[in-house]
Amino acid sequence: MAAICYQSPIKLSFTTSNAFSNPIPNNPPSLYPIITRFSSGFNLSAVPSKTQTTHITIPEPEPIFSSVKSFAPATVANLGPGFDFLGCAVDGIGDFITLRVDSKVKPGEVSISDISGAGEKLSKDPLSNCAGIAAISVMKMLNIQSVGLSISLEKGLPLGSGLGSSAASAAAAAVAVNELFGGKLSVSDLVLAGLESETKVSGYHADNIAPAIMGGFVLIRSYDPLELIELKFPLEKDLFFVLVNPEFEAPTKKMRAALPNEVTMSHHIWNSSQAGALVAAILQGDSRGLGKALSSDKIVEPKRGPLIPGMQGVKKAALEAGAFGCTISGAGPTLVAVTDGEERGREIGERMVEAFMKEGKLKALAMVKKLDRVGARLVSSNPR
Amino acid sequence: MAAICYQSPIKLSFTTSNAFSNPIPNNPPSLYPIITRFSSGFNLSAVPSKTQTTHITIPEPEPIFSSVKSFAPATVANLGPGFDFLGCAVDGIGDFITLRVDSKVKPGEVSISDISGAGEKLSKDPLSNCAGIAAISVMKMLNIQSVGLSISLEKGLPLGSGLGSSAASAAAAAVAVNELFGGKLSVSDLVLAGLESETKVSGYHADNIAPAIMGGFVLIRSYDPLELIELKFPLEKDLFFVLVNPEFEAPTKKMRAALPNEVTMSHHIWNSSQAGALVAAILQGDSRGLGKALSSDKIVEPKRGPLIPGMQGVKKAALEAGAFGCTISGAGPTLVAVTDGEERGREIGERMVEAFMKEGKLKALAMVKKLDRVGARLVSSNPR
Repeated sequence: MAAICYQSPIKLSFTTSNAFSNPIPNNPPSLYPIITRFSSGFNLSAVPSKTQTTHITIPEPEPIFSSVKSFAPATVANLGPGFDFLGCAVDGIGDFITLRVDSKVKPGEVSISDISGAGEKLSKDPLSNCAGIAAISVMKMLNIQSVGLSISLEKGLPLGSGLGSSAASAAAAAVAVNELFGGKLSVSDLVLAGLESETKVSGYHADNIAPAIMGGFVLIRSYDPLELIELKFPLEKDLFFVLVNPEFEAPTKKMRAALPNEVTMSHHIWNSSQAGALVAAILQGDSRGLGKALSSDKIVEPKRGPLIPGMQGVKKAALEAGAFGCTISGAGPTLVAVTDGEERGREIGERMVEAFMKEGKLKALAMVKKLDRVGARLVSSNPR
Repeated sequence: MAAICYQSPIKLSFTTSNAFSNPIPNNPPSLYPIITRFSSGFNLSAVPSKTQTTHITIPEPEPIFSSVKSFAPATVANLGPGFDFLGCAVDGIGDFITLRVDSKVKPGEVSISDISGAGEKLSKDPLSNCAGIAAISVMKMLNIQSVGLSISLEKGLPLGSGLGSSAASAAAAAVAVNELFGGKLSVSDLVLAGLESETKVSGYHADNIAPAIMGGFVLIRSYDPLELIELKFPLEKDLFFVLVNPEFEAPTKKMRAALPNEVTMSHHIWNSSQAGALVAAILQGDSRGLGKALSSDKIVEPKRGPLIPGMQGVKKAALEAGAFGCTISGAGPTLVAVTDGEERGREIGERMVEAFMKEGKLKALAMVKKLDRVGARLVSSNPR
């Protein structure tokens, strides 16, 4: 495999922030076959960074389409013991963006013309909307000053469901802008643009936006520099996610407050070993082992689970119905179970929906989805 | 890959103990292609277990050799963020056992006739000696009642060096007894026998004994039941360990006391993500990524490192000399660095030895060793 080190060809005057605490001391830069590494970066927090800034200006590209339509999938982050660093994309559910060259919009700017689907609560101010922020970020990276753009956002994902709704919008927007101008940016640049959006609307975490853009499973190895490891689930193996979304608004503040500041050493060792087992199961296409690892979190799920009515009963029902594992998707309230067969997935989903009603007095909807291996992509385009 | 579920064919009246806290709730038993699973088990602690005991008696086997000689390799445990659950075996250094059918020894018992090499401090009482304990354990598993055995132990590994000395002796003894009687036990049984020995002389941890017996990298997924995941570093890739052992007795009590009872959530997330990255690097044969992950521990190394004079300076020297990573081997004082070339490994070793003298005023010896992919094995045998 070739060693790849991504360096943005774009003018970037911001610097990488340091989300995790200290950088690895004296470690020489490494070249990874499977790592997207960002030498350029973003000033996403007030923490001064040791990363040097890059100043390279490229000529402004022309739009090659008059409009494009893009799609980005739902994502499941906080994968059990992969809390805060491991996420994956699920196929067949997500957000669409239609992006147009719009002479009514001031050159270099973007407007949001309409939002349909599950997004009625969202702001149309592009500076407050996740799609808008990501679009602007990509336009800046591309140095777009002569063309105005308008966005039409079709929300396929419910807000606050734990399925990476904001990341899907940001990913679709980032890809749409990039493709409209000829696809000059790398995947890594698009993740950075999406991360800027996530930071403003959802929090500084890449475990939804990275898989939303890249597809598959992605491990966030570090934020300074941002390093992502693609974990390829073998093509010949099947993996199905049973996503069960109850009619319940997860108490975001309580969910955050439920996270412990400290964990015991024994729980740390347990969860770390399960994180290792999870990565091994993904790379070896072991859906059973993957499910087991997903189910094994002793740190976050025990704290957050009780905030979702009936959660433990629903998990029990999933496992009894043959799911290999079950946990909270993102920060909930959606629960995710895994299996290797679609039919079995539907049965598991039915049992989980019943259990949500019985144990939590909540109506719920179940979906059975495959792993999305592609990530955000163009679905159609119109020539100029 | 075939699904393998190990079930000992042997009479075992003890039950599996619970080292990690709670078992995964309601998780159905899984069959792993890469997991050695032990349905039978050991009563290694006073904690009552939920695992059912197995009572199957096999006929006593005859010895098929009059004597055998076995070897078991050194192991590096506590692999950076893999603390307490990930270890690997290193080639070309380890312990030898010569095991003889001995009519002077009471049938069903074992004696230790002599210990050579670096083991002059070791007890010859088989109930206190790691080789003796493992040998007795295997004899019990095999139901040996009619034959007495004597052990000659050749210690190639210094005691208390952080290279899995006790595990090597136990592994070599377990394999020797099993092979003498026709190799009837599985690898998993041998690990259990070795774990009984480790528990008595070193502590209840399998991250040395499992790779000492199995070779390669082994992840300890759980102890109840004991589940091990073999992580295969690709055959076509090179991996070299630079092991630098200073003339210094690691303060075992201080080393243990230095471990924190609690870790911050941010350090937990960091170390877990690095553990995931480490597993990915191993499976993908990415020695650079492996080294980087090895170097990234923010929890244990920062506490234990200062107890080894000059440790930080030696690590710095290793990285400056081109090592991909460096950390403490086991509980030290040996330091381990990794690289992908033998010649480079020797240079790194020289720089580390110099730094131990300069920074820690300690004489040290460097070795460059490959990954051992085989584990404990017979090296010779004499027919009856």
